[in-house]
Amino acid sequence: MSELTESVTRMIKEFEKLPGLGKKSAERIAYHLLKVEKVEALALADAIYAVKENVRYCKHCFNLAEQELCEICRNPKRNQAILCVVEQPRDLIALEQTGRYDGLYHVLLGRLAPLDKIGPDQLTISALVDRVKTGSFLEIVMATNPTVEGDSTALYIIKQLESVRPPIKVTRLARGVTTGSDLQFANKEMLADALEERQSFR
Amino acid sequence: MSELTESVTRMIKEFEKLPGLGKKSAERIAYHLLKVEKVEALALADAIYAVKENVRYCKHCFNLAEQELCEICRNPKRNQAILCVVEQPRDLIALEQTGRYDGLYHVLLGRLAPLDKIGPDQLTISALVDRVKTGSFLEIVMATNPTVEGDSTALYIIKQLESVRPPIKVTRLARGVTTGSDLQFANKEMLADALEERQSFR
Repeated sequence: MSELTESVTRMIKEFEKLPGLGKKSAERIAYHLLKVEKVEALALADAIYAVKENVRYCKHCFNLAEQELCEICRNPKRNQAILCVVEQPRDLIALEQTGRYDGLYHVLLGRLAPLDKIGPDQLTISALVDRVKTGSFLEIVMATNPTVEGDSTALYIIKQLESVRPPIKVTRLARGVTTGSDLQFANKEMLADALEERQSFR
Repeated sequence: MSELTESVTRMIKEFEKLPGLGKKSAERIAYHLLKVEKVEALALADAIYAVKENVRYCKHCFNLAEQELCEICRNPKRNQAILCVVEQPRDLIALEQTGRYDGLYHVLLGRLAPLDKIGPDQLTISALVDRVKTGSFLEIVMATNPTVEGDSTALYIIKQLESVRPPIKVTRLARGVTTGSDLQFANKEMLADALEERQSFR
């Protein structure tokens, strides 16, 4: 592609590094940015700058924040007695979008994955344990992903919390069939969970 | 998405404006950029800045350039007697990649499209006509896209060039079946072109 100028080639290479973008999509984006007004292209560049300058992790819960504490930790209307543990900020967002939870969060910033060399020290687990020990939570909701790695992360954390006195109630998200789904397409694990935790008919 | 910080929301909105990126892909890219080292994220922003600062159109042919003239116009080894007319810089790149053309180019920066309000004045047609009139080209190759709009653009240009004295040879890209393709899947237009312009067996 020596026919493209050096700057364009470099920009295409940078876009190719983004998840989900191949060479063709990066090229299409490059032609688009070449064509649009300068101010429009620079708005994208400036937005990236702003994020890397302004966004940090909340000092309490490790959610994304532009101040010392995130919006949720700063909100006095949130239920301060319940703490929901999630892997990533995006999981927190998914839970917030249900509108069914008004407690606080703790973001682990990952899950235990020995094969990827992610151990407890790479996550915010010790900050979580400190927070639970010094706080006055009545319940911890484990909302790690329902995967092998998410489950073992939850189990590891529960072990760390065993020493907390008085013992604290720990729950996890319910598992079962998906509302609106079709049983014939449900996988075995989903149906097994659904049978195991079957509920009385209300 | 009020749970995302303002900067992150703004960055996602900017990515959503790019061709081929929806909300989900823009969010995935945002999480990626939040996670990577600052220097890596800023490399993308800087690359966009560099393109908008450095890249302009070649004064002769309207190809992309970082100097007054593009690499092709600056190359004395290119055949100065033949001029290939394309719609976009990306078409020029596609032709260059064949390695079968060593002449010069003229990039129209679009095609005539009355419905999109793109007339001759929005393209580089008058610069092309001047270039042909004042130059000493022996052949003009029309390589606009083989579409209705590409064809009418070529016809319009040929009309403009009729006044050039001495009359100049104008050719167009051959049309026919695609090498390596299967006739049963060829469309009618392709087969009609292939029959119309059938060649003697060499």
